[in-house]
Amino acid sequence: MKFDYKHSGVEKSEIEKTAKKLQPYITKLQGVVKRGGYASPESSINCVSDDETVENVIRLAKKKKFSKVTHIVVVGIGGSNLGTKAIYDALYGQFDVLEPQRLPKMIFLDTCSMSLLGHFEYFVKKHITRPEECLFVLITKSGTTTESIVNADIGFAALTKKFGIKIAERMVVVTDTDSALWKYAFKEEIDILAIPRMVGGRYSVFSSVGLLPLAALGVPIESMLSAATHMRDVCLQPTSLKNPALLSASILYAHVKKGRSIHDTFLFAPELESLGKWYRQLLAESLGKEKNREGKTVQAGLTPTVSIGTTDLHSMAQLYLGGSDERITTFVSREKDISEELAPQSSLAALVPGIRGTHVGTINEAILKGTQKAYQKKKRPYMDVVLKNISPESIAEWMQWKMMEVMFLGYLIDVNAFDQPEVEIYKQETRKVLNAKRS
Amino acid sequence: MKFDYKHSGVEKSEIEKTAKKLQPYITKLQGVVKRGGYASPESSINCVSDDETVENVIRLAKKKKFSKVTHIVVVGIGGSNLGTKAIYDALYGQFDVLEPQRLPKMIFLDTCSMSLLGHFEYFVKKHITRPEECLFVLITKSGTTTESIVNADIGFAALTKKFGIKIAERMVVVTDTDSALWKYAFKEEIDILAIPRMVGGRYSVFSSVGLLPLAALGVPIESMLSAATHMRDVCLQPTSLKNPALLSASILYAHVKKGRSIHDTFLFAPELESLGKWYRQLLAESLGKEKNREGKTVQAGLTPTVSIGTTDLHSMAQLYLGGSDERITTFVSREKDISEELAPQSSLAALVPGIRGTHVGTINEAILKGTQKAYQKKKRPYMDVVLKNISPESIAEWMQWKMMEVMFLGYLIDVNAFDQPEVEIYKQETRKVLNAKRS
Repeated sequence: MKFDYKHSGVEKSEIEKTAKKLQPYITKLQGVVKRGGYASPESSINCVSDDETVENVIRLAKKKKFSKVTHIVVVGIGGSNLGTKAIYDALYGQFDVLEPQRLPKMIFLDTCSMSLLGHFEYFVKKHITRPEECLFVLITKSGTTTESIVNADIGFAALTKKFGIKIAERMVVVTDTDSALWKYAFKEEIDILAIPRMVGGRYSVFSSVGLLPLAALGVPIESMLSAATHMRDVCLQPTSLKNPALLSASILYAHVKKGRSIHDTFLFAPELESLGKWYRQLLAESLGKEKNREGKTVQAGLTPTVSIGTTDLHSMAQLYLGGSDERITTFVSREKDISEELAPQSSLAALVPGIRGTHVGTINEAILKGTQKAYQKKKRPYMDVVLKNISPESIAEWMQWKMMEVMFLGYLIDVNAFDQPEVEIYKQETRKVLNAKRS
Repeated sequence: MKFDYKHSGVEKSEIEKTAKKLQPYITKLQGVVKRGGYASPESSINCVSDDETVENVIRLAKKKKFSKVTHIVVVGIGGSNLGTKAIYDALYGQFDVLEPQRLPKMIFLDTCSMSLLGHFEYFVKKHITRPEECLFVLITKSGTTTESIVNADIGFAALTKKFGIKIAERMVVVTDTDSALWKYAFKEEIDILAIPRMVGGRYSVFSSVGLLPLAALGVPIESMLSAATHMRDVCLQPTSLKNPALLSASILYAHVKKGRSIHDTFLFAPELESLGKWYRQLLAESLGKEKNREGKTVQAGLTPTVSIGTTDLHSMAQLYLGGSDERITTFVSREKDISEELAPQSSLAALVPGIRGTHVGTINEAILKGTQKAYQKKKRPYMDVVLKNISPESIAEWMQWKMMEVMFLGYLIDVNAFDQPEVEIYKQETRKVLNAKRS
C-alpha cells in the first residue's frame, strides 16, 4: 500500500505537532496490545491476534459443513454486516449477476424489506435443493436488533417450510455473551460465537462478526488477520511519519479545525463501494457526537461520503471542483493489474484521440492523475492511497488502518469514539409508536 | 404521492415569499411548454410529451427484436445511465441475484473497469447462446465520452469474437445529432436515436437516453411519460402551495441561506438507492458552481447524500442526530404494501417486544415514524415524501418533480443549472497525461 499526502494541504510541521499530542494515546494502545484481552473499548485492536476465535470459527466450519454451502445468508445490519459485505462485494459481489454459477454466494438481509423477503422466500423455494446448501449467520451484538430478528425469523421460515428443519440445524448465532439471544440460542442448541462485549459493532469486523461468514465464504482468514496485525503494529509506531493512521488522523484533524466538514472517500474501483460504506459508518458514528468527553455540547463530526471513480466524475466532480471548499478527499485506487490487459481496438475507438490500443489500466490511471491535477489546480486538498491489489489482505490492512485513524481522531476531537448515545432516541420513539399501535 | 413539509423548519410566509420570486421563471417555463420543441436548456421539460421520440423508440423495438433480448447492455456513464439504472434497480436490479431466471436483465458498463470487462467477456462466452439475446445501447451525448467508447469497443468485442457479428447488428447508439459518434454510426449503418442538443445529460431521462433502454426492458414508457407529464404540469402551477417543486425548492433555498450545506435523501426502500444516486448528480452538478450568472465567484452548491432506511439508521443516524446541524433531509418511503403481508411468528421473535405477529410493513412504518420523531426532538429539519408504490409511474413523477425543483433552485441561487464548466478541467488534465504517456 502506498500513501501519499503531499497534496493534503497540511504542513509536515503541523502533522508533527499533532503527532506529539497523540503520544499518550498511542502509549495507551500499546498497553492494550501488551495486556491482550478485551478490557477496554480500544481492545478491538486485539481481535486480529485472537487465536481462540479463529479456532472456534474453524471448528464451526467443520461442524456446519461450510464446504457444502452454496448460499450464506448474512442476517445483520450496521456493524454486524458492513465489514463482511465490504470484503464480499470487493471480491465477488459486484460481479454476482455476471457469474450465476460461482458459489458460494452471500445474501444480505439487513433492513427488513418486504420485497427482499418475498424474493428470498421464492428463491429458496425454487433454487435451494438441500438444507445443507444454506447457512444462516445471525449477527446482532445486542441480540435484540429488530430488523435482524425479523429477518432471521421470516427468512428461516422459508427453509422450515421447504425442508421442515429447525433453526439449530442451519443457523449460527454471533452475539454478545449472555445477551437475550445468547440465552435463547443456548436453550435451542443453536451454535453460538461470542463477540467480546467491549468490541463495538463498527470495530468488530475482525471478531467472529466478520470471521465466521468470511470463513464460510472460503476467505483465508488467517492470512487476512496477519495482514491486519502487521498494519496494527505499524499504526502503533510512536513518532515516525511512517505511521499512516497517525498521518491521516492528523491531516483530517487539521481540516476539521479549518472548518471542513466532509470527508469524501473517492474509490477508483467500483467493487470497493461497500468498503466505502463500511468506513462511512466508522467515521460517522464514531465522531458524530453531540457532547464531548467533558459533557460540553459540541455537535462534533465529519460527514463521510463515498464516491466511485470514474463514475462520479460524471456526477459529482462539478461540485467537488466548483462548489464550496468544505471537503477533504481520500483517493483510493489499486495498482495497475497487468495480468490481463485489455485495450480498445476497433475503429469506434478512434473517436477518442489516444485510446485505441491503450490499455484500460493505463486509461484509468490517466483519468485518476488528471483528476488529481484538477484538484491541485482548484486547491482542493486530498490524500492518495494505492492498494497493492484487491484481496482480503489488502482490504484488511486498509480497514485496520482506518479503525485506528478514527480512534486517534476521537482522541484529538475529544469525543468518545466508541458509543452512540443518540441512536437510542429513534429506537425509543419507535417503541412508542409500536406500543401505541398495539393498545 | 404525499408530500408533507410541516417539519421543514421553514415558515409558510417565507415559502410564499420565495414562491413570488419564482413567478417570472415559472412563466418562462410555461412558455417553454407552450412553444414546444427544444430551443432552451429548460426544454427538457418537453421530453415527456414528445410523441415523435416515442414512435422512434417503438419502431426500433420492432426492428431490433426487443422481445427476444435477454441482456440489455447499457453503455453510458453519468446522465447517460443513472436515470435508467434508477428505474431498473427499483423494479428488478436489487433482486437480480435472487432471480437468476428473470429476464431481460440489464448490465451496466459505466466506468471502464478491467475486472468488470473481464467478467462480462466471460459471461458472454458462457451464457449468451445467440446474438439476438444481447442488445448494446451505447449512450453518450457528446459522442466522445472516453469510458463509454472504451466499454462499447471492448464489450462488443466479446460478441464479435463469439458470433462474428458486426456492431450494427446488435447495437443502438443514442447521441447528439451530428456528434462524431453520430457520423460514425451513420457511416457504419448503426441505428441511431437523437438526444436534443439542448437537453443536458442529467435532465435527459425522458428523452431517448432513458426511453430506449427502458422500452427494451418492457417498461410501459407511455404510461410512465404520462405520469411525468402530469407532474410537470402540477409543477408549473404559479401560486399554489400545492406545487411540490415550488415548495421543495423554496424550502431548500431557505436552508441554503441559513448555511446548511448538505441535502440528505433518506430512502426507506433499499431498491431506491440508485434513484438517490440519480438525484445526487442532478443536484450536485446543477448547483455546484464556482461562479454565479454574473460571473462572480460564489462557490455555490449543496452536497447531496443518499441514505437508506432502515440500514443507515445503524450507521449514520448518530451523526445525523448528534453531529453538526448542517443538513436538510428528505425522507422518501412508499405506502404500506398490503398485498403480501409477512410477519415474524417464531419463538425467536419474542426476543424483541411487540414484533411477533406484527406485519413487516407496520414495523417499518413505526421505525420511520420513530426516526422522524427523533429528528423533531433534535430539531433537525426534514421533508417527508410517500410514494404510492414503486412503479415506473411513481418514480417518473418523482424524477420530474426533482428536475423542476433543481431548475427552480438554480434560478433562486442565481447559477446556471445546466452547464458543468469545471468538469472540463479534469478532462483536459487527463488528455495531457495520456499524451505525455504516448510521446
